[in-house]
Amino acid sequence: MSLRLLSVSALALGLVALAPQASAQDAATVERAIAIRDAALTSNIALDYVTQLTTRFGARPAGSKSEQDAAAWAADYLRAHGFQNVRIEEFPLVGWERGEGSAAIVGKNAQSLVAAALGHSPATPRGGVEADVVRFSSFEDLQAASDAAVRGKIVYVDLGQMHAMQDGSGYGPQTRVRGAGPGVAAAKGAAAFVMRSVGSDEDRMPHTGTTRYVDGKPTIPSFALSAPDADQVSRLIALGEPMRMRLISTAHTYVTHSQNVIGDLPGATRPDEVIVLGSHMDSWDLGTGAIDDGAGGAITVAAAKAIADSGRRPARTIRVIFYGSEEVAQPTPETGNGGGVYARALGAAAEKHIIAGESDFGADRVYALRLPAGAQGSDFQKAATRVLYPIGVLASDRVETDGGVDIGPLGPLGVPFFGLAQDGTRYFDLHHTANDTLDKIDPAQLSQNVAAWAGLVWLIADSGVDFRAMRPATAAPAH
Amino acid sequence: MSLRLLSVSALALGLVALAPQASAQDAATVERAIAIRDAALTSNIALDYVTQLTTRFGARPAGSKSEQDAAAWAADYLRAHGFQNVRIEEFPLVGWERGEGSAAIVGKNAQSLVAAALGHSPATPRGGVEADVVRFSSFEDLQAASDAAVRGKIVYVDLGQMHAMQDGSGYGPQTRVRGAGPGVAAAKGAAAFVMRSVGSDEDRMPHTGTTRYVDGKPTIPSFALSAPDADQVSRLIALGEPMRMRLISTAHTYVTHSQNVIGDLPGATRPDEVIVLGSHMDSWDLGTGAIDDGAGGAITVAAAKAIADSGRRPARTIRVIFYGSEEVAQPTPETGNGGGVYARALGAAAEKHIIAGESDFGADRVYALRLPAGAQGSDFQKAATRVLYPIGVLASDRVETDGGVDIGPLGPLGVPFFGLAQDGTRYFDLHHTANDTLDKIDPAQLSQNVAAWAGLVWLIADSGVDFRAMRPATAAPAH
Repeated sequence: MSLRLLSVSALALGLVALAPQASAQDAATVERAIAIRDAALTSNIALDYVTQLTTRFGARPAGSKSEQDAAAWAADYLRAHGFQNVRIEEFPLVGWERGEGSAAIVGKNAQSLVAAALGHSPATPRGGVEADVVRFSSFEDLQAASDAAVRGKIVYVDLGQMHAMQDGSGYGPQTRVRGAGPGVAAAKGAAAFVMRSVGSDEDRMPHTGTTRYVDGKPTIPSFALSAPDADQVSRLIALGEPMRMRLISTAHTYVTHSQNVIGDLPGATRPDEVIVLGSHMDSWDLGTGAIDDGAGGAITVAAAKAIADSGRRPARTIRVIFYGSEEVAQPTPETGNGGGVYARALGAAAEKHIIAGESDFGADRVYALRLPAGAQGSDFQKAATRVLYPIGVLASDRVETDGGVDIGPLGPLGVPFFGLAQDGTRYFDLHHTANDTLDKIDPAQLSQNVAAWAGLVWLIADSGVDFRAMRPATAAPAH
Repeated sequence: MSLRLLSVSALALGLVALAPQASAQDAATVERAIAIRDAALTSNIALDYVTQLTTRFGARPAGSKSEQDAAAWAADYLRAHGFQNVRIEEFPLVGWERGEGSAAIVGKNAQSLVAAALGHSPATPRGGVEADVVRFSSFEDLQAASDAAVRGKIVYVDLGQMHAMQDGSGYGPQTRVRGAGPGVAAAKGAAAFVMRSVGSDEDRMPHTGTTRYVDGKPTIPSFALSAPDADQVSRLIALGEPMRMRLISTAHTYVTHSQNVIGDLPGATRPDEVIVLGSHMDSWDLGTGAIDDGAGGAITVAAAKAIADSGRRPARTIRVIFYGSEEVAQPTPETGNGGGVYARALGAAAEKHIIAGESDFGADRVYALRLPAGAQGSDFQKAATRVLYPIGVLASDRVETDGGVDIGPLGPLGVPFFGLAQDGTRYFDLHHTANDTLDKIDPAQLSQNVAAWAGLVWLIADSGVDFRAMRPATAAPAH
């Protein structure tokens, strides 16, 4: 006991990274992590959780009754699986409902288009918006366009198809158009905004996603076309055909609430030290949110349960949080998001948040471990690699700096992040579409995720490793 | 000349299968067929045709203005590519329009479902049909059910997912439910009919298709669920949850016309002898009919054009027909279909129809040649194999007996059929869905189709081979 007390006070002084009796890399801890990893591989909890969640509640838009019902059910699920101090943290929200909508080419070459309104897009006037279309192939071209070229028209931005990448890096270059495009077009007097979906598939399915308010005001009605429809429109324009569209949407906002669901596995000896495992409960309305992000909840709850079932409770508290309202998070005060709500409520407890990780990238396999800067090349990284490499996870020289939308607000409070990077090659085929359904989850890869989280979290939870105190390695590790 | 006359009269007597100067298997004919095959591989006409057709007109439901406009455009396309005697054969049709529709689970587990009305399904009452659901896992179970078990309910038939097969043989066992299921359920007093889509994919897309009238009367409102939605409904029922649905459809029929588009490459020496290359112009309304059946038109027109461009016109006439109204063909007189119209109008000319082939199975590669029974093991089959084997097409011991929906009505008139069987492994992922769009066509496989058709049709067109006179081989050929 005195040894443990010593180690705690040493940690508190920030003088040592690892306490002697609580080293992540001691042989017994690694051995136990490997055993937990292997037991987690055979757990059926993740598949059970995501199957029930997506089947019972279908889509769970932020603030909907479905998200609220799912949260109550998930709290019961946590209790039934031995989590303690299970609570629901409610917060107000401006919700958004899609209503009805349609898109069509009118006049010559008249035909229907498959499109979806972007999140928080306002409705069209009754009867829709009908106007000629002006096409841009980059955000910069739209920004450079004169008001006269855009005024009264439907702005169409087609960056070409998003490129599929293992690390999902094809996504970023396209999201600026979705976030800021409608606002730029609206400022120039456009009647409506249409874009090629941000997605790597060629399915006839639009990818929705939230567009941003400009100065707190709703923008013009904004839509995403499926990739085949975007091809079609751009091909007709290239053929020299006139292009006129009619867009209809009855989307609207409403006042509601969302909630975070929180459950703990209290630490055996240092319960005030918390490791956060985050994911989100809400989904887009088009699919049933299996990969985004039912899978994340499934992975984190199953990983925590695998640790709980290992026969020895770890020293630190493992906290599973199903955040509410991730998808429509807006950078404006009147619309809430669960990650910000949780962080703002923490107060001084943030100092005892050891680290946070977020699972919000589907259910395909984990291929890389990303740690805070100070942990690069550390003994902790080496120990983690011993646990994770055999199941296909390599140590990455990429530092985890921002965590994700849900845990991100913990960053400014000084909480470090880890990341278990998942293969995103096919993630953006499905992301934010009707195709985000249970059948897209590969049970074997889901289990590998659970195993990686369980093994890694055990190493952190049953040790005194202090990521805040770690010094960055002076040179990048060999890889 | 006298030699040719002799061969014609010998053919007319049915005494010889092959005329001396017009043998399909002579070295020069095979050599020319190989040269045409290889030239066809590099032709861009098929891709041009299907790109323009699907882009300019989008979906082309039977009897729609879009199908009519596409027919006029296709006739111009044939003329521009040197076809002669191009004509449009118009016929009356009862068209069907989907209108608006929706499906949802109501009450506990309320959630939206992705569904589509089946072709020729009547509308629901305004406000929809809402009723409890009774599930059957086979057509036989539905047939055996008591009226009391079904009356007033929504009948749901889920045979499980269709199996993908190279030859498409997974399709047949499922289509009976679509064709006859609504009628059986209606006779027992069901309020509406819902089935798992006939498809091999796990996309959130329903597969439509025509349901059959019973005694000439429309059946109850009938819908197909996408596979993930069918999974979802069956999973909820398996969880013991109550299952109640609301179905809405504003589908309706209307009086219109459709048309066949016909163009010839007249034979140089025996123009009255006709080889029919068939496909259909209409498509389902959900997609743009790229694989069903823009591709068929593209393949046949490009193959004929490759022969026309070979520098020598063949002896016989090659006739390309884009049939109208294939998809909604009904076995009742008041609804037309192009294949029947063409055949009924033929009269005695049917006797000079040498053979017919139909391309209506997408754009994936041809893997087998199927011939009439008498041609099995024949010299013609051997010559054809010399042309086709190098591009991946094997002679099949399967006899081509029914041709397809469009050319099928020629069968009772004595016209033999050939078939160039295409790989159907992924065809039913896309068939009758919104996903049937241009991007699903692989240009390399499309070109292989054109090459196979061009080489084979040349062998037939520039020879005196008489399939009607051929005796079946006494033993099955080795293969």
